Amino acid sequence: MTRAEIIKEIRAKKTFLCVGLDPDVEKLPKHLLEEDDPIFEFNRQIIDATAEYCVSFKPNTAFYEAYGVSGYTSLERTIKYIRQNYPHHFLIADAKRGDIGNTSAMYAKAFFKRLHADAITIAPYMGSDSVKPFLEFNGKWAIVLALTSNEGSKDFQMTDAKDGLWYEQVLKTSATWGTPENMMYVVGATKAAMLADVRKIVPNHFLLVPGVGTQGGSLSEVVKYGMINHDIGLLVNSSRAIKLTKKSRLIKI
Amino acid sequence: MTRAEIIKEIRAKKTFLCVGLDPDVEKLPKHLLEEDDPIFEFNRQIIDATAEYCVSFKPNTAFYEAYGVSGYTSLERTIKYIRQNYPHHFLIADAKRGDIGNTSAMYAKAFFKRLHADAITIAPYMGSDSVKPFLEFNGKWAIVLALTSNEGSKDFQMTDAKDGLWYEQVLKTSATWGTPENMMYVVGATKAAMLADVRKIVPNHFLLVPGVGTQGGSLSEVVKYGMINHDIGLLVNSSRAIKLTKKSRLIKI
Repeated sequence: MTRAEIIKEIRAKKTFLCVGLDPDVEKLPKHLLEEDDPIFEFNRQIIDATAEYCVSFKPNTAFYEAYGVSGYTSLERTIKYIRQNYPHHFLIADAKRGDIGNTSAMYAKAFFKRLHADAITIAPYMGSDSVKPFLEFNGKWAIVLALTSNEGSKDFQMTDAKDGLWYEQVLKTSATWGTPENMMYVVGATKAAMLADVRKIVPNHFLLVPGVGTQGGSLSEVVKYGMINHDIGLLVNSSRAIKLTKKSRLIKI
Repeated sequence: MTRAEIIKEIRAKKTFLCVGLDPDVEKLPKHLLEEDDPIFEFNRQIIDATAEYCVSFKPNTAFYEAYGVSGYTSLERTIKYIRQNYPHHFLIADAKRGDIGNTSAMYAKAFFKRLHADAITIAPYMGSDSVKPFLEFNGKWAIVLALTSNEGSKDFQMTDAKDGLWYEQVLKTSATWGTPENMMYVVGATKAAMLADVRKIVPNHFLLVPGVGTQGGSLSEVVKYGMINHDIGLLVNSSRAIKLTKKSRLIKI
């Protein structure tokens, strides 16, 4: 999916919402546990109910791997369902992968060629050759962690590097590996005011923004500091704040 | 598996070899492709042939995920086979995971409770709450990336941080989260001379050392700079340099 296509979808639907698919079996509504594949069924209902209000879906691989082969099967079914029924939604595998070149190439194969995701989230610690294999696929995206929404972001990301803070160094260095046509960055909404600093370094890259909702980030601040006027430049994720009720497909965001 | 048990195995077998299980179907011997599960069969032969010469096995998850549900099934079978037949081998899931707390907890569930691995490799970029969920399991280990063996380690790990280089900052900060009883570090053999600097910061932690073999690291330098006299403190990995021949179980390291 190209940058122009993503922007077109956002403008047409007037939303930059990305719906996270983090199904925790222990927290699913009880009636779903009677299904053959409760995780897939939960996802299917969330997907059908939210598709018209969002432009992107983001399954978080941990929540599938926790159930082994059965969970991995649910992940494949979920992605296939999105691909078949909502082909214009931007599909992000939230996997936080990244390894030496030959291994990252295998992850790229897993997520782009087998699962047909549009994008994958990447941890940047191992540097250029851990990210570049993901940039070799036309129309696919590497979404690199820059400034995350969690408490632990203070440990390294927000401490001093040679040239600014670590996350700024990651932005500056990694931005040279790709382009705004094949790279995005994760910048947490819990650090919304810092989006102004992020925009000084990467004025044109799309930002995937988690942390609105359960984690407490402010949506208005995200827009104020992070949006690019014409090209939008934001995908705002919500996962745990989206709930499926028992009786119907009512969704509360 | 406790630190004392690992040391006991190393001393008894007089080896600190860890055998990497990175099966690439495109590179498997042709006769294995006739098997129902070529990846598992390749692994099984490698495992049986090397078990007496090593103390650890390390499947690399990318090489299984690249084949979807089928690959994930091979991963589960491989780990189950090791667990049943070689229960005293230290089993490392080389997964390079790490995410916000609730997600890392799901990865810990996936690798420790479902797959029954002893250890998992972790990317440290997201800080304390991305690592700590892996430290809450008795007898299980978080193996944190410090100084990796690849070219991209120069991009961030070997650049200046507030207090030394980035990888040194990662060692200093993360060492406060756990103990030498539940944390190890990845330090690449391609940077063997830097093991002396690593040992100044973490004198007692085990180090998992990739990069000997295909990547060109020196084993004698690893021992010279990295070994702890009585407790050994090293697990040296080899993956691509271990080859299975067609006719028998001959192994060349």
